[in-house]
Amino acid sequence: MSKVTVAALQLAFSHDEGENIALVEDHVHKAAARGAKIILPPELFEGPYFCTVEDEALFGRARPAAEHPAVTTMQRLARDLGVYIPTSFFERDGHHHYNSLAMIDDSGEIMGVYRKSHIPDGPGYEEKYYFRPGNSGFKVWPTRYGTIGVGICWDQWYPESARVMALMGAEMLFYPTAIGTEPYDDTLDTSRMWRRAMQGHAVSNCMPVIAANRIGVEEMPGCAGAQTFYGHSFITNEWGDLVAEVENWQTGALVATLDLDAARTHRAGMGFFRDRRPELYGRIAQDV
Amino acid sequence: MSKVTVAALQLAFSHDEGENIALVEDHVHKAAARGAKIILPPELFEGPYFCTVEDEALFGRARPAAEHPAVTTMQRLARDLGVYIPTSFFERDGHHHYNSLAMIDDSGEIMGVYRKSHIPDGPGYEEKYYFRPGNSGFKVWPTRYGTIGVGICWDQWYPESARVMALMGAEMLFYPTAIGTEPYDDTLDTSRMWRRAMQGHAVSNCMPVIAANRIGVEEMPGCAGAQTFYGHSFITNEWGDLVAEVENWQTGALVATLDLDAARTHRAGMGFFRDRRPELYGRIAQDV
Repeated sequence: MSKVTVAALQLAFSHDEGENIALVEDHVHKAAARGAKIILPPELFEGPYFCTVEDEALFGRARPAAEHPAVTTMQRLARDLGVYIPTSFFERDGHHHYNSLAMIDDSGEIMGVYRKSHIPDGPGYEEKYYFRPGNSGFKVWPTRYGTIGVGICWDQWYPESARVMALMGAEMLFYPTAIGTEPYDDTLDTSRMWRRAMQGHAVSNCMPVIAANRIGVEEMPGCAGAQTFYGHSFITNEWGDLVAEVENWQTGALVATLDLDAARTHRAGMGFFRDRRPELYGRIAQDV
Repeated sequence: MSKVTVAALQLAFSHDEGENIALVEDHVHKAAARGAKIILPPELFEGPYFCTVEDEALFGRARPAAEHPAVTTMQRLARDLGVYIPTSFFERDGHHHYNSLAMIDDSGEIMGVYRKSHIPDGPGYEEKYYFRPGNSGFKVWPTRYGTIGVGICWDQWYPESARVMALMGAEMLFYPTAIGTEPYDDTLDTSRMWRRAMQGHAVSNCMPVIAANRIGVEEMPGCAGAQTFYGHSFITNEWGDLVAEVENWQTGALVATLDLDAARTHRAGMGFFRDRRPELYGRIAQDV
């Protein structure tokens, strides 16, 4: 099928898990009513972005996919509405903890779990304390509307993850996100870089990119300052042009219809994949 | 040394080789007078961009670096002015022909030759007829002002070439270019994609990018239509912000001063290189 309507949800979350999941549920309904068939909520939407602090008790929030209320609720919703929902969640697997994503298909089944490969660390984003670097490798999934690749937040800065997913057959790239101000430097606004990195992936791989970021001010007990998530969620076409974006402080669903046949033709015509020189790229895959 | 002033030349070329080389010479002088220490002319500046046609006679323009007037003139100029000039030229090496670049240091010596790795092909850009895909691999060179990597035109669309040069130690990326309208589709303007791809490299690698494109309308005997080169040359900082750009139809030198120490600190702080997962990138270096 050539055309597909997709949505990215830009939402503000509280400390109430039930309330957060219900909020996403509500906006998935609204996006589906507008025709969206693949609907992307932000990263770790069941709670506040807790990685601003390093608190042992917070590991208690991690659960296996089958027991995680964000996942099980989205499964029911996906089946009811006949939509795909790439669902970010804090995963526990034995003694390991991952920043993961359950790819939920339009019958409500989990097609697979991707575990975030690139784990950031620094003031406001203490993810290396919580998350083991993902051991799933990059993943792509066939849907009724085309093959999709999903990276999680920090993955979005890496041309490597976008390219690997493209080489695995992805035709669209989805990135659930939690990014905002830098607590150590409140003059630092990374939002333009954040967009540029992903618009670059769209251009280099000639495919649409969909990014859903949380928005709003959040506080965590034990954290000196508040964290302001900057939104700026967007959808690009295969040229990297923004075809849907929301204002910084607006919440809701961005919806856009993408033409994957046109993207495929553009991709062939540009010849980027034809002219690759994998024999010269060895250093990228080496520990240097 | 932390700060370096660099220049990109945006110029229009004729069919007169002597005139073209003299034009570049003049603008290298002007850029040097404004303090530039590394000065980048556009791709294949000694003539019109001839790859709009496939004409056997044009192979006669290729010469070894030591005999090429563009290279030897820039060597003299580099020595006289004490500047580095990455110099694009059409290279002959035995039976092979390459789209090459001689890295000329500030004493006028050739530090090495890079041969364009990615060769485009299509209406208006029939490069596969003329150029063997480069066998040099990617190259970086230490200068008095930092280590620089140079890609040639089509290389600039590839996140792989930028990343490999970064992993080899590059602190700035230079791209001489010849790009403009698409003869088969005069509504197609790739200039915004062209910038986006390279601004993406700047963000992902946290380093400045300098791109010099030719400008103006050129005709080649035997070519049905004219080719309009669109300029849009630019210099970014390590955030991908444009710190110097020229209007579409303006010619001359863009000059900017870059702070490589600040870029290095930013690069460390972002942690993109720290968090890479080379063991997951194998597919990039495989023929898949």
